[in-house]
Amino acid sequence: MLSDSLRALVFDVFGTCTDWRGSVIRACQAVGMAKGLNNVDWPTLADEWRRDGYIRGIARIRAGETPYVGSDVLFRRKLDELLPKYGVNGLSEPEIADLAHAWRRLDPWPDTVPGLHRLKSRYVIATLSNGSFATLTQMAKRAGMPWDCIISTELRQTFKPEREAYLLAPRLLELDPDQVMLVAAHESDLKGAQAAGLHTALVPRPLEWGPGGLQPPPPDPSFDFVAQDFGHLATQLGIS
Amino acid sequence: MLSDSLRALVFDVFGTCTDWRGSVIRACQAVGMAKGLNNVDWPTLADEWRRDGYIRGIARIRAGETPYVGSDVLFRRKLDELLPKYGVNGLSEPEIADLAHAWRRLDPWPDTVPGLHRLKSRYVIATLSNGSFATLTQMAKRAGMPWDCIISTELRQTFKPEREAYLLAPRLLELDPDQVMLVAAHESDLKGAQAAGLHTALVPRPLEWGPGGLQPPPPDPSFDFVAQDFGHLATQLGIS
Repeated sequence: MLSDSLRALVFDVFGTCTDWRGSVIRACQAVGMAKGLNNVDWPTLADEWRRDGYIRGIARIRAGETPYVGSDVLFRRKLDELLPKYGVNGLSEPEIADLAHAWRRLDPWPDTVPGLHRLKSRYVIATLSNGSFATLTQMAKRAGMPWDCIISTELRQTFKPEREAYLLAPRLLELDPDQVMLVAAHESDLKGAQAAGLHTALVPRPLEWGPGGLQPPPPDPSFDFVAQDFGHLATQLGIS
Repeated sequence: MLSDSLRALVFDVFGTCTDWRGSVIRACQAVGMAKGLNNVDWPTLADEWRRDGYIRGIARIRAGETPYVGSDVLFRRKLDELLPKYGVNGLSEPEIADLAHAWRRLDPWPDTVPGLHRLKSRYVIATLSNGSFATLTQMAKRAGMPWDCIISTELRQTFKPEREAYLLAPRLLELDPDQVMLVAAHESDLKGAQAAGLHTALVPRPLEWGPGGLQPPPPDPSFDFVAQDFGHLATQLGIS
């Protein structure tokens, strides 16, 4: 049975484990309150920060259009563009640096931490994220996500969905790819893992882009598991 | 105060966190019992395994005498030499592979896990070990050592006490070297950390080489802390 042959579960983090959007909006609003900025469209800024700064930033590096930089640099560069564009002025350098680190202070979805504890009782659990090693470590500590280890694609200066990024997990853990399962909310991520020989569990996060936001497509039937949340995944794996 | 400016504590593992010698001897004795081998000097084998296989194996690689291999390979190669030398015959390949993994099943010193929990309440805690990433991850999971992240010198194909090995910790955690402190039982390790700009805490482990074994020298006065165990270190850092 697959649940018996698996040894490690690796997780996408932004979106899958954490509510990046709600968390980043709250961090932005706190800055807005402190600075008396009343008319900033923070939700749109947050969406653009994620979509243009991170997702497209990574796509451009993968396409060879821009040289490799880590995701922390992508976040910071985009923020430097977005602040004037959205009329956010007067922030000091330490304030901007701290706001860029909002991505280190993401709140988990309600099921994340209890679900991870259950899954950890049987499997090695690790991040497998394009977030930086430092970002993932700080985020886990603050949120109480009980990873056995942090794996960041930064360790090989690559990004998911490159094949090498997925193979990093079995290589570092000295496992075969089919002893490892990626848990993720995003189909493209899971398809990349499949192509590298990993197993896959889809946990859709319909609130990732906010209430009324972009909805996930119907689950691809090729994924090994489809679960409503991490607790449901643990139950499907036979963990009480 | 130093305790306020520190952000992360990184730990030597073999010897400092775990009783490698007692653990390896017990693993060997279990094999001896199962195989009906009554006259094997397992303690001497364990000491030679550590000293000649690991410590000298690393020294030879650092000196450029042999090409880089990870520490798991060093352990396995030495075991293949030691088994016939000590009259241990008739083990199958899976049994030898499992015995080589005795280094993944080391028991912590009695103060290690409760001490780490206290230290973790204020600082990022991480391994900084020449053990492989997989070895350190498996060992922590079995022993309940609550690392925030696993840092292995294998990530850069280097070994402590190379300068680069110590700088790996602040680089991955995005900290300055002087925001990081190495906790170790071995003076040479702490001197290497000092040379790279890290702070240092000595926790001597007089039982590392067994009762009546090699004793640690008097503490070098240049270390920032000298503690009897991890709990004592937490107390010195003002953690209740």
